[in-house]
Amino acid sequence: PDAAAAEAARARQAQLTKPPGSLGRLEELAAFMAAWQGTDRPKLDRAQALVFAGNHGVCAQGVNPFPQAVTGLMVANFEAGGAAINQLCRVAGAELTVIALDLARPTADFTHAPAMTEAECLAALNRGAAAVDPSADLLILGEMGIGNSTVSAALAHAICGGAPEDWVGRGTGSDAEGVARKREVVARGVARHAGLAPLHLLAAIGGREQAALCGAVLAARAARVPVMLDGYICTAAVAPLHGAAPGLLDHCLVGHLSAEPGHARLCSAMGKAPILDLGMALGEGTGAALALMVMRGALECHNGMATFAEAGISAA
Amino acid sequence: PDAAAAEAARARQAQLTKPPGSLGRLEELAAFMAAWQGTDRPKLDRAQALVFAGNHGVCAQGVNPFPQAVTGLMVANFEAGGAAINQLCRVAGAELTVIALDLARPTADFTHAPAMTEAECLAALNRGAAAVDPSADLLILGEMGIGNSTVSAALAHAICGGAPEDWVGRGTGSDAEGVARKREVVARGVARHAGLAPLHLLAAIGGREQAALCGAVLAARAARVPVMLDGYICTAAVAPLHGAAPGLLDHCLVGHLSAEPGHARLCSAMGKAPILDLGMALGEGTGAALALMVMRGALECHNGMATFAEAGISAA
Repeated sequence: PDAAAAEAARARQAQLTKPPGSLGRLEELAAFMAAWQGTDRPKLDRAQALVFAGNHGVCAQGVNPFPQAVTGLMVANFEAGGAAINQLCRVAGAELTVIALDLARPTADFTHAPAMTEAECLAALNRGAAAVDPSADLLILGEMGIGNSTVSAALAHAICGGAPEDWVGRGTGSDAEGVARKREVVARGVARHAGLAPLHLLAAIGGREQAALCGAVLAARAARVPVMLDGYICTAAVAPLHGAAPGLLDHCLVGHLSAEPGHARLCSAMGKAPILDLGMALGEGTGAALALMVMRGALECHNGMATFAEAGISAA
Repeated sequence: PDAAAAEAARARQAQLTKPPGSLGRLEELAAFMAAWQGTDRPKLDRAQALVFAGNHGVCAQGVNPFPQAVTGLMVANFEAGGAAINQLCRVAGAELTVIALDLARPTADFTHAPAMTEAECLAALNRGAAAVDPSADLLILGEMGIGNSTVSAALAHAICGGAPEDWVGRGTGSDAEGVARKREVVARGVARHAGLAPLHLLAAIGGREQAALCGAVLAARAARVPVMLDGYICTAAVAPLHGAAPGLLDHCLVGHLSAEPGHARLCSAMGKAPILDLGMALGEGTGAALALMVMRGALECHNGMATFAEAGISAA
């Protein structure tokens, strides 16, 4: 990040026609964008949204009330423009690309074996990295994958510790019995792969969309493209990067706090403060797309407001 | 409100391609708009933003570090397009009108006398009411007035009780000594007008922009136009309507939770849950304009998403 650009952005904020600090988080967002874009006047001409979809062998454990075929049906719905993320990208001004990752070949059931081989994990990482437009001003990330709230809980538990119940919620609609089953599956899976380093946990427990999200985050970092993560699934997907080196996620914001109960704990463990809290738990990048609108507001204020001098107002 | 339209909107939400309830607050916002617009497919073609400005005699008590002339200078800044609210209305798609209310003739100092006569209060109410476009799909309300965080604290204290310190914060930039002075002024002013009915408190303590905000809220209600209030000042301005009859504000949402510490308490007392919480405390309608973007997201999802049947997905 460019500390001088961030400092110049903060200096500009102090001159804009408002009491110092009164735009709150919007002022921080402008300085964050300045730091990563390397200019005191950051822009949002091009917002790229990437949604990665994958299928998970752990569904064999009965962790999700929906059949795995729904992942592919929802990908078709994304492509037809009928999902929530399509509407939100349109209104927020993001260009959406959906990438289905070998849906017909789910990962292995992580309670019995590593979910992915190293080669499979690397292939998905590379798919994610290759999808990033290095000229984007901001990258929105989202996902779809039946069963991936269980995968997320297992990743969060393996990386951040605690107990399985700290990380397991209702997902797409599990009842109390389903939640209990998810907890047991998470406990068993994490015990099966205990002791692995964070990036090996990504392969052992994660799925292809988790690996692709990590690849996209790393490619964005290399191109200094700031990233807006979505909710629980997205945050958990990149937890292995945080586990490997927390600074790897310095260019990432969390768009919204999910209604999944583990998300607040995970954000706290990873030092992230979500921008929105709207009781959402849909995934697809929907919370990140909404946060993009807040970011647009932040940059419009930063770049468009008059200074006290321009407005002829003496700052008391 | 049209309960049948709201129910039809909720029924539609249950058919959209997402787990039930997973869009959280966005689903509630769509049903709210359906109820007030009287249709299961609410729209946001026309968002009107009104910002009312006034000056306050209580500034004679030294409650604000800025001179009162700043109110007029900021109105000129609004008219020139240089303020935060101009940028946020542009990006959120709202048509902004700024109405300066007799700035050269501040209200009386409410620690010595009623701030407004009944005639002055009615005139401001009428100015506010007359400004509302009854054909708008949503009304955004904001304000500007040096000293009006003290006015707001006094109104909130008078209507909701508690202690002066529950309602007094730093406003546009008071230091600890300034906050102590504001508390003392609020205590004295509220004691001076104790026992008045809520609408008489509006005249005795409020200013012209507070009365205009009440008038706009009432005119919007008559036209069934839903309202997005801004932060602490806006919420406190309409607290007399809540005090008179809580249902008068059923068509009003609170756009954001202000960093002013009294706002959370006031929202709780008035049964309102702010949509955003971004640490802002600027006024002008800035938090309401940002919340308009969330509302746009809510309605785009509501109207644009495919149903499970349309997408050919069996809902489990």
